[in-house]
Amino acid sequence: MKDYRPLELPEQDCGQQDYGIVPCDGGICAAEGVRAAGVCAGLRKEPGRLDLSLVALDKTSVCAGVFTQNRFCAAPVQVSRERVANGKARAIVLNSGNANASTGAPGVQVAKQTTALVADELGCAEEEVLVASTGVIGAPLAIDRFITGVPAAVRELDGTPEAAHRAARAVMTTDTVAKESSCEVELPCPDGKTVRAHVGGFVKGSGMIMPNMATMLCVLSTDAPLTSEAAHEALLSSVKQTFNKVTVDSDTSTNDTCVLFASGRAGGAPIDVDSMSYPAIAAAIRWVCEDLARKVATDGEGATKLVTVDVLGAANDEDAETVARAIANSPLVKTAIFGHDANWGRVAMAAGKCGVDFDQYNVDIDLLGVPVLRAGLPLPMDEEDLLRRFEEDEIRIAISLGEGKSHARVWTCDLTHEYVTINGDYRT
Amino acid sequence: MKDYRPLELPEQDCGQQDYGIVPCDGGICAAEGVRAAGVCAGLRKEPGRLDLSLVALDKTSVCAGVFTQNRFCAAPVQVSRERVANGKARAIVLNSGNANASTGAPGVQVAKQTTALVADELGCAEEEVLVASTGVIGAPLAIDRFITGVPAAVRELDGTPEAAHRAARAVMTTDTVAKESSCEVELPCPDGKTVRAHVGGFVKGSGMIMPNMATMLCVLSTDAPLTSEAAHEALLSSVKQTFNKVTVDSDTSTNDTCVLFASGRAGGAPIDVDSMSYPAIAAAIRWVCEDLARKVATDGEGATKLVTVDVLGAANDEDAETVARAIANSPLVKTAIFGHDANWGRVAMAAGKCGVDFDQYNVDIDLLGVPVLRAGLPLPMDEEDLLRRFEEDEIRIAISLGEGKSHARVWTCDLTHEYVTINGDYRT
Repeated sequence: MKDYRPLELPEQDCGQQDYGIVPCDGGICAAEGVRAAGVCAGLRKEPGRLDLSLVALDKTSVCAGVFTQNRFCAAPVQVSRERVANGKARAIVLNSGNANASTGAPGVQVAKQTTALVADELGCAEEEVLVASTGVIGAPLAIDRFITGVPAAVRELDGTPEAAHRAARAVMTTDTVAKESSCEVELPCPDGKTVRAHVGGFVKGSGMIMPNMATMLCVLSTDAPLTSEAAHEALLSSVKQTFNKVTVDSDTSTNDTCVLFASGRAGGAPIDVDSMSYPAIAAAIRWVCEDLARKVATDGEGATKLVTVDVLGAANDEDAETVARAIANSPLVKTAIFGHDANWGRVAMAAGKCGVDFDQYNVDIDLLGVPVLRAGLPLPMDEEDLLRRFEEDEIRIAISLGEGKSHARVWTCDLTHEYVTINGDYRT
Repeated sequence: MKDYRPLELPEQDCGQQDYGIVPCDGGICAAEGVRAAGVCAGLRKEPGRLDLSLVALDKTSVCAGVFTQNRFCAAPVQVSRERVANGKARAIVLNSGNANASTGAPGVQVAKQTTALVADELGCAEEEVLVASTGVIGAPLAIDRFITGVPAAVRELDGTPEAAHRAARAVMTTDTVAKESSCEVELPCPDGKTVRAHVGGFVKGSGMIMPNMATMLCVLSTDAPLTSEAAHEALLSSVKQTFNKVTVDSDTSTNDTCVLFASGRAGGAPIDVDSMSYPAIAAAIRWVCEDLARKVATDGEGATKLVTVDVLGAANDEDAETVARAIANSPLVKTAIFGHDANWGRVAMAAGKCGVDFDQYNVDIDLLGVPVLRAGLPLPMDEEDLLRRFEEDEIRIAISLGEGKSHARVWTCDLTHEYVTINGDYRT
């Protein structure tokens, strides 16, 4: 029997080694000048559950943000999107338990009132405070819990890893773990010296996840002195390559929000996109985003596995992306993975259904690193070996279309009984 | 409180009343000149389970067919698509248990050999026999079971409702019921007389259902003397308005096949698309297709409910269809229905995510006939009343985008634990 070799996957690293990016502790508070808090404001049914999160900078700082493309975008998205356009902000207040989406003009009013409460406490302008919400869609949100909750959160503001962790926990809904990440990077300066900068953040997201321009709710910070243009550019390109490559269930949230604050407290000259230190800090931001994005897919509602789909040999980037998403969103592919069933025929089906043109007799497929189809012909399978490989935490699917040189990678998770249970009675 | 009225849905009837279409017995054999059989050829693991189906006309007749657009189209699709282009055929042989898809050139060989066995028994040319398969993708299919199975099926060929029913049963995979339909219609003739014609058929399909140009496997017959052009036109327009509006899980099969035989045995002059009797027979064909399409959605894998999604007020037909499919394929909408959770916010989310432009403050939503959103504002809900309405067999969702006058209707089902169970170990 001919010996078939697994497909070679293109390197997709952010440059961690090249730039000397090192993981560190601290989450959103890893960056100097950033404080956080998570408190119980009483917005959720469960007594004592953290539901109000606040991230505040010591002074008004550079800020960039990207938001959902959903036409039913939530009230807080409408408010924050307008304010982030100024390129400066002081804080973001986030709540779980109610998405404040499909709530009409009264919802926008409540979102603005919430930021006014924060501005009063911090002594800044209302326009310098951003807002984000997650939870049930279509339920009116009242301001009353924020009237006591916001001052409590401001009192708890702290720069410790514990405070960062509480802020990350307070935005969880069906998430099973708080998802945080942080790293250090040495930025080269024109004078030959270096500046040590930090990037950190947290994300919430588990279901209704196929972000389009941002993920569910994500707050990032750095102490690097980014200009607002550089912050925007670094955030946009990182989100595009990380969060926008995640799909849990093909459903794009009404509330996706991802913001980046840059306190500048690391010191050094302002960093623009042309600065010599820009590539290193952009890589560090991407590193944190990718770490958080993989954590979102791993913690997909009911998920037992992280699934990485690579599409190779596509005629162009759009085709590669379309096929990767068709596979990653296919309920039949996802249930087969849940069942540890090496049913790669469903990968072929999903690739073939999405309108991308290719010749099935040029297609190769690997499942879990094992060649199962070459030039459209099925190879004999060692089912025992495949069953063993299904024990791995990350399930890898690779398909080559034989049409060109484009590549796309997408992360997803399996579709399980638990997903149905969680979403069969989410609201009640 | 203002009294909100439910959205008015456009009539989508095929003209059953106008043309006097009456349901009748007989399934695929309701049409004169059509015989059918279902036998156990031993293709499936379960002993005695019917797995080989044959539909044969008394003589070579007009035939039209539509097939999957999946690029990984199965071997039998490749063979049948080429042959149906002649506009004439004598029979179709169908098997369950193996889809003969992703099987390369050897798969095409086996598909052709199967038709040769049928042709030998019936005494016709191999090119006059069509073939269709359903089951596991990517597993080689051997000819051996057909060598004894095909002659057995030919021996059993009969024009009774029982034989039609056995043919319908032999193509079932995860289907829980055999899905058949048949009707009679009086065709007006130029001489003032009428001809009584019949249309009948069966369909299999339960998972991997979002047909694109056809459904999983469907065989239709009529004794009306359609020309091949008229048969093609009537089939195409019916499929477009019925099967192509069904989605169970957004996954388009590699094997979708829908063929229509016209024996001409009802008598009368040949019916072309310009004939005065064409609208009546086309309506009868559409009536059978819609009946079967609704049965497919109702019998979706693990489904407990048929779900009908109406999108109104779209700017154009494409937008209406895109929004309807986004709602019908949303796992979050489908799990909420399974959980009897009146979480209409997910309908808003799904409508908003799909790139179709609209203003959320013009949108109205009805759930189960109850207005829940008007001009983007949530209305108070009587949860008890909605819970009671969830007991209905058909769950109706209607949304008006407020952009124009286009309408689309799509059928789907809920997403349940049973879907995950069925598809977690389908192959094993």
